[in-house]
Amino acid sequence: MTANPASPWEDLPIRDELRGTSPYGAPQLDVPVRLNTNENPYPLPEPLVARIAERVAEAARHLNRYPDRDAVELRTQLAHYLSRTTGHPVGPAQVWAANGSNEVLQQLLQTFGGPGRTAIGFEPSYSMHALIARGTNTGWLSGPRNEDFTIDVDAARAAIAEHRPDIVFITSPNNPTGTAVAEATVLALYEAAQAAKPSMVVVDEAYGEFSHHASLLPLLAGRRHLVVTRTMSKAFGAAGLRLGYLAADPAVVDAVQLVRLPYHLSAVTQATALAALEHTDTLLKYVEQLKTERDRLVDGLRALGLEVTDSDANFVQFGRFADSHAAWQALLHHGVLVRDNGVPGRLRVTAGTPAENDAFLAAVAAVLGDLELLPATGPDHTGAGDGPTPSKEYTHHGQ
Amino acid sequence: MTANPASPWEDLPIRDELRGTSPYGAPQLDVPVRLNTNENPYPLPEPLVARIAERVAEAARHLNRYPDRDAVELRTQLAHYLSRTTGHPVGPAQVWAANGSNEVLQQLLQTFGGPGRTAIGFEPSYSMHALIARGTNTGWLSGPRNEDFTIDVDAARAAIAEHRPDIVFITSPNNPTGTAVAEATVLALYEAAQAAKPSMVVVDEAYGEFSHHASLLPLLAGRRHLVVTRTMSKAFGAAGLRLGYLAADPAVVDAVQLVRLPYHLSAVTQATALAALEHTDTLLKYVEQLKTERDRLVDGLRALGLEVTDSDANFVQFGRFADSHAAWQALLHHGVLVRDNGVPGRLRVTAGTPAENDAFLAAVAAVLGDLELLPATGPDHTGAGDGPTPSKEYTHHGQ
Repeated sequence: MTANPASPWEDLPIRDELRGTSPYGAPQLDVPVRLNTNENPYPLPEPLVARIAERVAEAARHLNRYPDRDAVELRTQLAHYLSRTTGHPVGPAQVWAANGSNEVLQQLLQTFGGPGRTAIGFEPSYSMHALIARGTNTGWLSGPRNEDFTIDVDAARAAIAEHRPDIVFITSPNNPTGTAVAEATVLALYEAAQAAKPSMVVVDEAYGEFSHHASLLPLLAGRRHLVVTRTMSKAFGAAGLRLGYLAADPAVVDAVQLVRLPYHLSAVTQATALAALEHTDTLLKYVEQLKTERDRLVDGLRALGLEVTDSDANFVQFGRFADSHAAWQALLHHGVLVRDNGVPGRLRVTAGTPAENDAFLAAVAAVLGDLELLPATGPDHTGAGDGPTPSKEYTHHGQ
Repeated sequence: MTANPASPWEDLPIRDELRGTSPYGAPQLDVPVRLNTNENPYPLPEPLVARIAERVAEAARHLNRYPDRDAVELRTQLAHYLSRTTGHPVGPAQVWAANGSNEVLQQLLQTFGGPGRTAIGFEPSYSMHALIARGTNTGWLSGPRNEDFTIDVDAARAAIAEHRPDIVFITSPNNPTGTAVAEATVLALYEAAQAAKPSMVVVDEAYGEFSHHASLLPLLAGRRHLVVTRTMSKAFGAAGLRLGYLAADPAVVDAVQLVRLPYHLSAVTQATALAALEHTDTLLKYVEQLKTERDRLVDGLRALGLEVTDSDANFVQFGRFADSHAAWQALLHHGVLVRDNGVPGRLRVTAGTPAENDAFLAAVAAVLGDLELLPATGPDHTGAGDGPTPSKEYTHHGQ
């Protein structure tokens, strides 16, 4: 209904920067096995569904009133969750929540970015960082990665020193590659950012719960310009809820109040999120299952002879195809929807249920004979800053 | 938790434009009679609460999946509602919804405003127009009103011709004054805006259902640069839901897709709004009761000797007090919370239940003896463009 190749808005007085762009979003196709948007494949358990209905009914009895503008109860429970699962004590004054981590990121860019300011990300990465930068008129810098998709620390420090961005995005685990970022890398980039400006450093941990590594949240101690963002979309199996949040110094939380829309978080969203947080232990058991399945996908794809990027997320990047769109199409033909994020030669598959993953691996096995693979990249290709990086060719296909 | 007079963010690298500003929002005080934020005083009826729980439970069973990004079912039902209540046929392709009309307005400003562009409003009016303009780095022009708070058409046309704003906001009924805008005025300003640029004209009908006058929605026919915004916060008694929407040419709906955050509207929000739309007839009966109560407030305040602005909304502006803050405080002392929107000498009271309105009128009667009233402004003061208008003294206290 909204996409239209004829760009019907072209004669409207839209901003010049928006001309020639297109709306973000993966195709919402009705396919038997949907492994394209990193959704959690496990529906919420029935007792949680019942509890959501109960808490939403309570909230609906006061729905004629504005919601708690500061979402104090929700922030308190999110702080408890972070403290318990990371071992780092976090208080409600350090937590802020919004409609998806996208809105959290938008508020951060409105506060610390905007016209005349710039943000940097190390690409390929979560393409909404660049898109929300554009939406808030923040300049965007595409920073380098190594050929194995780790961050090229020396090149990244040099880019920060040269361009002095106002915001540095570090996605860990990275989307769409699945790559975790080492604590030492975050520390090096934070120091570089402070020396250059100082800048805000935003660590996007949307997939943090799926990592083999500990959260980077404890780095908040003593670092006022560091922000960690999270979401309930993946680990809590609640992509439909749109609940993202951040942890940072309380001053950062206070600062985003200057740009947040008042009463942005509805009473039903707050009630649903609170219900889900009551069931954290159950939901985190699904996360453990998904980590096992993710590892099985990595092994299964490698056994098929594909090149697979190490993954700390609930998805796996694989390739390398001479024609990744043809590979995407071939899998779709077998009833499996994966994602072409625009990384040359690569596709991304979300870890689904065991049955979905079996179907995916079978589909890959079935189509491989018809697809041309590129020679494997080796560890000898992963030198720092040696020529064009994947980010140079990267276009935004996102999520 | 978030307000702090010491501005703890002052040493953070926030945008210069944000320094010295403060978060928007009325005090959320626990007072027996709360008539300060134009909330509908009637809780949702129990059958609707039950239906919301039912529809949200259905949605929660798929909450692990992203919501319908285009909210097609919701837009279809909103289109039906608009068609039925305004007599003007509206299709789903002409409707767009977001988290409160604030987010709708933000998307419009991101699409049609932004750096190097300007928006104009006729103040005093809904202060979020100016604040969202600031949040999107759109320049703000404060246009004139007559002393009786109607729009000074000649002065408005002259301001549009001179400043050539990219967006023209017309709030009808106006907040905080309650003033309806005549169709002829909208047409005159639309023509002026087209001659000047052409610009987008946004008619904010957040309180449209409470008006003595028909909706301005039929003006959309043949006017591609006109947008009408609405909300479920007031007429549907659902301020806690945060559901705002717009009607416009389908090209406008397509254009805002370029800036909307993907999946911005949660599955629980869509489900709750759909449940409320099933109960439209019941909810519109409350609207009729509130219109009667609103008229009773106007008459009651005038009988007490106060100057009252004609109201087409679910609130009433009254005065004129030599010290409006003292009047606000005196009413609060009597357990009644009203709103000081920063309009000199005036306060605003929301139409509550009959008992709440009785309590309010009794409180006014009780405190009047201690307050100094200013001489009434007469119809002889309402000439067009004669000297400073109220907008010159207006500061943003909002909602």
